[in-house]
Amino acid sequence: MNPRVTAIAGSLIREVAAKRKPGGIDLGLGEPSLMPNPVHLEAGMVYAQRHGLRYTVNAGDPHLRELIAAHYGYPHMRGAENVCVTTGSQEATYAVLKTVLDPARDELLVVEPAFPSYGKMAALEGVTVRTVQMQEDDGFAFDPERIQAALTARTRLIVICSPCNPTARVIRRAQVTALSEILQRRGGEPVWVLHDEIYREQTFVDDAGYFAEVYPYTIVTNSLSKSNALTGLRLGWAIAPADVAANIVKVHAWLTSCADTFAQAVARSVFEHPGGVREQTWWYKERHEQVVDALAASGIRYIDPEGSFYACVRLPDGMESLPAALDLADHHDVVAIPGIAFGKSFEGWLRLSWVSSPPDVRTGIERIAEYCSLRTM
Amino acid sequence: MNPRVTAIAGSLIREVAAKRKPGGIDLGLGEPSLMPNPVHLEAGMVYAQRHGLRYTVNAGDPHLRELIAAHYGYPHMRGAENVCVTTGSQEATYAVLKTVLDPARDELLVVEPAFPSYGKMAALEGVTVRTVQMQEDDGFAFDPERIQAALTARTRLIVICSPCNPTARVIRRAQVTALSEILQRRGGEPVWVLHDEIYREQTFVDDAGYFAEVYPYTIVTNSLSKSNALTGLRLGWAIAPADVAANIVKVHAWLTSCADTFAQAVARSVFEHPGGVREQTWWYKERHEQVVDALAASGIRYIDPEGSFYACVRLPDGMESLPAALDLADHHDVVAIPGIAFGKSFEGWLRLSWVSSPPDVRTGIERIAEYCSLRTM
Repeated sequence: MNPRVTAIAGSLIREVAAKRKPGGIDLGLGEPSLMPNPVHLEAGMVYAQRHGLRYTVNAGDPHLRELIAAHYGYPHMRGAENVCVTTGSQEATYAVLKTVLDPARDELLVVEPAFPSYGKMAALEGVTVRTVQMQEDDGFAFDPERIQAALTARTRLIVICSPCNPTARVIRRAQVTALSEILQRRGGEPVWVLHDEIYREQTFVDDAGYFAEVYPYTIVTNSLSKSNALTGLRLGWAIAPADVAANIVKVHAWLTSCADTFAQAVARSVFEHPGGVREQTWWYKERHEQVVDALAASGIRYIDPEGSFYACVRLPDGMESLPAALDLADHHDVVAIPGIAFGKSFEGWLRLSWVSSPPDVRTGIERIAEYCSLRTM
Repeated sequence: MNPRVTAIAGSLIREVAAKRKPGGIDLGLGEPSLMPNPVHLEAGMVYAQRHGLRYTVNAGDPHLRELIAAHYGYPHMRGAENVCVTTGSQEATYAVLKTVLDPARDELLVVEPAFPSYGKMAALEGVTVRTVQMQEDDGFAFDPERIQAALTARTRLIVICSPCNPTARVIRRAQVTALSEILQRRGGEPVWVLHDEIYREQTFVDDAGYFAEVYPYTIVTNSLSKSNALTGLRLGWAIAPADVAANIVKVHAWLTSCADTFAQAVARSVFEHPGGVREQTWWYKERHEQVVDALAASGIRYIDPEGSFYACVRLPDGMESLPAALDLADHHDVVAIPGIAFGKSFEGWLRLSWVSSPPDVRTGIERIAEYCSLRTM
């Protein structure tokens, strides 16, 4: 057996999430209760009934790739040749890491707090992983200078998820510009940025920054999972400069051949519908306002949620997040994810998903606030 | 960039297949003109409309996994815990290679002629690949003793595709038993067999052998692609002993999270329908009889097609398969795949796919026979 595989530990997030009791409040996993727009599923079905479901070319249906590239309109990445359609953004991320990083010499830099998958995927590939911790003092805002200080001669890829899972912070235009300038001033082999934009349609600030708009060594991953309540469709993509995209397609071809043809037909429908990618954003905006109100009323310390569908709250000083999360799940019927799952800088925090029913979210926050206040005295 | 990725050459098979002219005869790629049974697609749609499309657990819907395990009923691999549902058998194969083989010490042994993907996937992982060539003298039959002679102390996995792409040979019960006994007599760390059963429902002999029925260190991969004309659905699986399956699931979870939930609902419908997995076998049987007649009438030398939907024909002595295939495509409007794409033992052969229309298959074989006869004199 491959020791890199047998060494993979189970997911702490799933372990805590599995503690949910029937009737308990689930602020654990990141899956909205929203249903997908049936129009797109029906378009997929019409396609399948008319044409069957045959392979597409490895990179994905050329028309879908054109639609995706045109929708985002990133400078220098506006054509089908810039897009590889994948089995969710998970496969896109995996293929990007495998394509860009040479395990013999390159390092991945993960900006934490971060979803643990990037580091674990890189470890599975034998790639050295470094992390750089954003700071509690400024609410875990993206800090270009801290990222700069963490670069080594071997850093070849920086992964940034914004809007961020878990912190709900959004990187700003000014921060993107500052980091781009730092990286471009460096000279030598370029340092690539993987911008995971999976929560792009859950952005609640006006000046969000996008690396692909200003930095030429950017690769973007995204999917229909969060924007269109289609997590189970497994339809994602990577957008990259053409030479890199061609190599991502090679890896993707060996991993899965091509993305599901039904899912690609559904995706065509989404991108062909005016506003299709943002058709559920109103739903998140509504709930976002409610959760901000509930947090403000709770008296608990929290990070202002700027994007994604999470909100993070601070446990009383000295309280560790894993025992607290287990205690909450076992004795207070609220599942929340311990911050330690996202990096050492996030110890003492809990991540709450706010896509359950609004009364559940409000009650869950109240229970956590009560739990904290009893232990602060 | 990862040098293992940039070093990947384009596919010779796709390069030759792309030579097809409009109106030309395509005996190149392995995709039937058959349509899928709409009943299963509709079942997928009913599911999606009722439940949306949310993630399943990483390994796949437990009920689907039970259905798959029960359908094949392999000794010691009869439960949901033995099955990992994947994005086509491509991802299953990739995950199996990555799980079982330690690049630092293990070797993969590929029984050739073989589809080139196994060796290329292993190379992408940095795993040493050896090949063992079956022999033209006995029509490339599976030869347990030749396989035995090719084993080294580092061989940890043997990959066998039966029914075979490209040779259309089927491994027999006696051959499976003989190889199993050889491997079990060896002692030491077990040598695993990956039996790629992708053409299982296109088997035209009565005594086909299945490693999973007799050899405890077997992993099986398969999908709905060929059995149910659902190549584009990307729904496959690996079946393995529970401890290995659990590790395959870990790799799969990082590659793609989980298989498409719509595709899993379609697959449940296939496995729940009595005879669903074999509902299109009659179509292949009918065309198989026609192709055997056409080959016999052609005067050309061929391997008796026992399974899969290919037939292989011999070029005149001394003629190389790649120039011949290009000449046929460019000047005789017939696309066939050169044997050299499948290993050095298959030089001098062409692989013909016989799932185009029967008149096309007959005309294509006649043109190739004429081409050969003119060059034999």
